[in-house]
Amino acid sequence: MRLSARLLAASALALSLVVAPAAAQDARTIREAEQLRDRALQDNVAYELVSELTTRFGPRLGGSASEQASARWGADTFRQMGFDNVSIEEFPLALWTRGEARAEILSPFPQPLEVVALGGSHATPPEGVEGEAAIFETYQQLLDQPEGALSGKIAVVLQDTVQAQDGRGYGATSPIRGNGPTEAAKRGAVGYVLRSLGTHDHRFAHTGATRVGEGTVPSFAMSPPDADQLRRMIRLSDQPVRMRLFSSAGFTADSHSQNVIGEVRGSGAADEVIVIGGHLDSWDLGTGAIDDGAGVAITAAALKLIEDMPRKPRRTIRVVWWGSEEVSQPPPSQGLAGARFYAASRAGEMATHVAISESDFGAGPIYSLTLPAGAADTDFRRAAQAVLTPLGVLFDGSPATGGGPDTGPTVAAGVPAFRLNQDGTDYFDTHHTADDVLDRIDPENLDQNVAAWASFLWLLANSDVDFRALRPASSAN
Amino acid sequence: MRLSARLLAASALALSLVVAPAAAQDARTIREAEQLRDRALQDNVAYELVSELTTRFGPRLGGSASEQASARWGADTFRQMGFDNVSIEEFPLALWTRGEARAEILSPFPQPLEVVALGGSHATPPEGVEGEAAIFETYQQLLDQPEGALSGKIAVVLQDTVQAQDGRGYGATSPIRGNGPTEAAKRGAVGYVLRSLGTHDHRFAHTGATRVGEGTVPSFAMSPPDADQLRRMIRLSDQPVRMRLFSSAGFTADSHSQNVIGEVRGSGAADEVIVIGGHLDSWDLGTGAIDDGAGVAITAAALKLIEDMPRKPRRTIRVVWWGSEEVSQPPPSQGLAGARFYAASRAGEMATHVAISESDFGAGPIYSLTLPAGAADTDFRRAAQAVLTPLGVLFDGSPATGGGPDTGPTVAAGVPAFRLNQDGTDYFDTHHTADDVLDRIDPENLDQNVAAWASFLWLLANSDVDFRALRPASSAN
Repeated sequence: MRLSARLLAASALALSLVVAPAAAQDARTIREAEQLRDRALQDNVAYELVSELTTRFGPRLGGSASEQASARWGADTFRQMGFDNVSIEEFPLALWTRGEARAEILSPFPQPLEVVALGGSHATPPEGVEGEAAIFETYQQLLDQPEGALSGKIAVVLQDTVQAQDGRGYGATSPIRGNGPTEAAKRGAVGYVLRSLGTHDHRFAHTGATRVGEGTVPSFAMSPPDADQLRRMIRLSDQPVRMRLFSSAGFTADSHSQNVIGEVRGSGAADEVIVIGGHLDSWDLGTGAIDDGAGVAITAAALKLIEDMPRKPRRTIRVVWWGSEEVSQPPPSQGLAGARFYAASRAGEMATHVAISESDFGAGPIYSLTLPAGAADTDFRRAAQAVLTPLGVLFDGSPATGGGPDTGPTVAAGVPAFRLNQDGTDYFDTHHTADDVLDRIDPENLDQNVAAWASFLWLLANSDVDFRALRPASSAN
Repeated sequence: MRLSARLLAASALALSLVVAPAAAQDARTIREAEQLRDRALQDNVAYELVSELTTRFGPRLGGSASEQASARWGADTFRQMGFDNVSIEEFPLALWTRGEARAEILSPFPQPLEVVALGGSHATPPEGVEGEAAIFETYQQLLDQPEGALSGKIAVVLQDTVQAQDGRGYGATSPIRGNGPTEAAKRGAVGYVLRSLGTHDHRFAHTGATRVGEGTVPSFAMSPPDADQLRRMIRLSDQPVRMRLFSSAGFTADSHSQNVIGEVRGSGAADEVIVIGGHLDSWDLGTGAIDDGAGVAITAAALKLIEDMPRKPRRTIRVVWWGSEEVSQPPPSQGLAGARFYAASRAGEMATHVAISESDFGAGPIYSLTLPAGAADTDFRRAAQAVLTPLGVLFDGSPATGGGPDTGPTVAAGVPAFRLNQDGTDYFDTHHTADDVLDRIDPENLDQNVAAWASFLWLLANSDVDFRALRPASSAN
């Protein structure tokens, strides 16, 4: 997509639209936000960052040496960019290792399947597990099975993931991956295979976290074409399908992960902190370009543009590259290890956090802005909308229900969230596959993201808008 | 692509074009050819065949139990279709087994690469081979190295394959796969990695045959994004790139492969034989849908339509599903095992073969016809062109230089070849990858292929055109 020319042309038009409705915001701030926006469209810092990150470190599984090395590089990069208070904060983490995964149909039509182990899943016995497949078109059909109904069987769920711009298709099917193995185990299954939570028909299997611990079974995702193949087998033969599964996955070592933090300190209201970022870890199959190299690059590049402004913003803007977002941890711990550590270790500072948001939905263009409840009828919203409209970003009147996965623990502590929503129509074609590599990123889309983040942040950091005070009594955010 | 409606509308128009120029051909035959063509567009036999073949047997590596089982199914299918003289002819074959393949960058940026072993390649020692990478942007740069220049190194060729409708991009780069390992070994290399001969930027590595025997090295193809990753590494670092390769591939057993043969016997000139077909074996990564499930299905479905005609064709049409086209064999044997066996065991019958052609270029639509040299100025050519034009097929005046890989040994014995050329623009996106599965086939394109084959074959089988007699003295075909 060739956005830049169109956007720059549109931005000239937009200048005339901005002044009147946003007059209550500082006019100079608005002009500066527009300059940041237009400069970002000519910039390529984000693409250079994600290119270097993915090339130097490849896959960055939470707790791996590669994730740790990428964090050291990240801190160096923040310092070179001139950010303040650069630090790496470490936390303990169990290292999960994928090992080998294989699945094959034994009958009626012997052949291998293309599978990956789910993240956090444990190993089969060395000889694998073998059994008749109990095949369900929908996850609900598995849940409808009584206890013991899957005894000795391998549970297979063929349910498709619906493609949707905002990712709600993935929202609907993610319990099939997260809880399916546990639900299958409850009913006596010895293994679990789902159709990958992917919206394509190519031979990539999608990994992703599943619930960790006792009471679950070795679990796998097969590529979408393999799920279609199973459907055809059932139509061609009345014989039961028998399968064999093998995995050597498991938690293999005590390790650590870390958050990388940098700031542009505010001038005037430095104790009011806006937190942005992405997660530095990735799954181990690809190089984590769209998940979430793009997000860490977009947010750091936006902050760099702000750092380069002739004056400081009023509020402090903090970028966090969270560690270990992806791999769940053995109980009592859960997922989002870095994000939980961030919020827990700052329990006393939450009141200083005026807003939080993450970029963690790929590398597609931003198409809408959501703000905390109560913020729609403000001069701040009107200024933001005027500055973002030329980028093809609309204001979505529904309140932000969160700011991205890693904002969850902080939002739970009462911090308001906003969101610059990316078009994720194609995101689940690639998400969590070996194909998540730099080739999937369109540099011009990345520039549009940086433009939206930089200009929006400039407005917010120079505003005195108080999202907490605007909140209706009934709203959680 | 929704071809059928357009094609059927166009065919009504074409009726008026046909009669005059092709009057010297039998008008009834031409009308019947048109009926066959239009019937094929309403048919779905080819798609059902390739669906059943790929679902029942999955990958069909030459000499494997799966290829052998698919041949038995093929013969049964031919009998059910009513074909004459159905037979399976076996020949001995060494079974190559892929085993495991791994490649990793050790420095400067440690990470795994997505690779597959080349077909026919042998194993590394159990500990793998490790060395500095000698990286070449073009294959010619490797060939320009003197003897010993690659001593102890791993030779890497990054050359890209150009996308082209007729596959000439692949023609240009296929020596990099076939001969590269031998050329690297001559210069002292201990391993060989090429950029996959693929025209896409996804994380699929393409296998394919390489030269077998002494004087070569363990050899691998990496996915195109991995080759791009290596390019970026070289730009980011002055350090030498060190790699480790592991493969357990090799020839593991004496086995056999087979050709499956069926005919519609002619009435009047039954001893004049037209040979068509595809190859039943596939690589072991995908299920061989486009290479060459499509070709075996298209040619059998076309012959079935002819079998169902109220009258027999004048000449005999023979369909051959060749065995073991893909995997080269240890010396003194070479590739195309089934095709060589077919021609060698019929050395005395070549004079009865009036023409040969294969469908082995995927599942894209046919866009042109090439005939043997000297056939352009014939009533036969004019009739064929009139019948094929409504399908979007043009007559390519250049003489056919062959009829497809498996026709090679028969053409070398003097049999004239023709070709219904498929649009292969996307063929090398998928060719020889794990992604070669049924999902890659558009049923309507398959129907168009069957329509072209059935109508063309009907004309040729009811014609007395003698391609040998038309040949200019200077032409090999």
